[in-house]
Amino acid sequence: MRLDVVTIFPEYLEPLNVSLVGKARARGQLDVHAHDLRQWTHDRHNTVDDTPYGGGPGMVMKTEPWGDCLDDVLAEGYEGGAQGPVLVVPTPSGRPFTQELAVELSERPWLVFAPARYEGIDRRVIDEYATRMPVYEVSIGDYVLAGGEAAVLVITEAVARLLPGVLGNAASHEDDSFAPGAMADLLEGPVYTKPPEWRGRDIPDVLLSGHHGKIARWRRDEALRRTTHNRPDLIERTDPKAFDKKDREMLSILGWGPRPDGRFGPTPEIVEE
Amino acid sequence: MRLDVVTIFPEYLEPLNVSLVGKARARGQLDVHAHDLRQWTHDRHNTVDDTPYGGGPGMVMKTEPWGDCLDDVLAEGYEGGAQGPVLVVPTPSGRPFTQELAVELSERPWLVFAPARYEGIDRRVIDEYATRMPVYEVSIGDYVLAGGEAAVLVITEAVARLLPGVLGNAASHEDDSFAPGAMADLLEGPVYTKPPEWRGRDIPDVLLSGHHGKIARWRRDEALRRTTHNRPDLIERTDPKAFDKKDREMLSILGWGPRPDGRFGPTPEIVEE
Repeated sequence: MRLDVVTIFPEYLEPLNVSLVGKARARGQLDVHAHDLRQWTHDRHNTVDDTPYGGGPGMVMKTEPWGDCLDDVLAEGYEGGAQGPVLVVPTPSGRPFTQELAVELSERPWLVFAPARYEGIDRRVIDEYATRMPVYEVSIGDYVLAGGEAAVLVITEAVARLLPGVLGNAASHEDDSFAPGAMADLLEGPVYTKPPEWRGRDIPDVLLSGHHGKIARWRRDEALRRTTHNRPDLIERTDPKAFDKKDREMLSILGWGPRPDGRFGPTPEIVEE
Repeated sequence: MRLDVVTIFPEYLEPLNVSLVGKARARGQLDVHAHDLRQWTHDRHNTVDDTPYGGGPGMVMKTEPWGDCLDDVLAEGYEGGAQGPVLVVPTPSGRPFTQELAVELSERPWLVFAPARYEGIDRRVIDEYATRMPVYEVSIGDYVLAGGEAAVLVITEAVARLLPGVLGNAASHEDDSFAPGAMADLLEGPVYTKPPEWRGRDIPDVLLSGHHGKIARWRRDEALRRTTHNRPDLIERTDPKAFDKKDREMLSILGWGPRPDGRFGPTPEIVEE
């Protein structure tokens, strides 16, 4: 997979040399190119932004440096044999970046990232490149960053770990929170390792029982407990067919039950009969 | 504000020297301390992880290095005069990190970050420190990363830009997506700057009109357009009192109307009367 990142802070991308992404680069699974947007400016102040039309606070990133830079980056990639680019624009106004979208992007051969600073990039840049390739405007969460570079690191890491051969043990995908399968839509519960006692704290007996069925059940109960607590929205949107008899018992203990529409929700505190 | 980050990849934190966070550090608004967890290991392989109790794929981070390290980090901070630490643990099993939570954390004097790798940190570490200080287990989004370091960068940046004096122009908070105020719960629409024409693409006439009322209305209409498209969930959970007559007209054009419960949702395609 080829990655191009255009930014005014190339030094922000240092983490792409570290850990999983760094190793994937070293093994040739990822071909990363960082580009300093200011090299495509034409004035001696290397200006990349200007005031917004219509007034208001903040600055807007200008069309020309972005357009000239993206043209060169794309030409260079095509010359290098890359095909099928997509443009990824991190923005709080985008659609949510999810694990599903990470999987989708991991199947593309070439991602070009355009992280904005200030109030964003002049809209015409997006409109222009949307005529040539798919554009993903994505938001990594409901919070405001100083720029899109942190989102590039997040998206790159989420995508890179899905590439074939990047994770040592493919099995460790399977229990991921948000992964498809048995634990889909449930958060992972607590984990423990040696020693069995630490500062007076033991581990749950069931984990020492060697009884695989009971361990799996305990893990699922803990996943239900954590999910109802931290992410009730995930339980509420789960197809109730995904809950077996034991799940329903645990949900009931946690104060959750089926609602009139069949989905599960918190049980009202007082039920009049 | 004091920040401590404990990680096995201190080099991942290089972006904390860059841009807004880097400048806040240089001005003394942020006092950042990175700690290499492996310095608190006691074997010659610097082991920080072991196999999970109960079996399964992946590895779990051990109690002892985390406990010994956090004890030292806390002692060092208190000696340096810091008070009121909170422990921030990025994990996909946490509650969602939101702008509201960024504001809450920005009001704390001391954040200690414990980004995990592998399948997570032995639960007893969290249980232990939860007896001494508030613990925030937070998820920056519904995707899986290789470790919590990218989340530390995201959270730090979201928090740092809210500290007094860090953003040059305080007014540029106000139009933020997810900021409280007129645009609460709406995504920002497109932005434009000079030149007025670029590659045959013009800017919307209204932005050249000088008519503040019309410009504000256009921006709000575009915010409604983008939000219904990218984040219908935000419209659906908005108190309908927040929509004025013009909003309702625009929502109607976009195919949205009030539902039986009063909230707005997409209008069914076929309405039988």
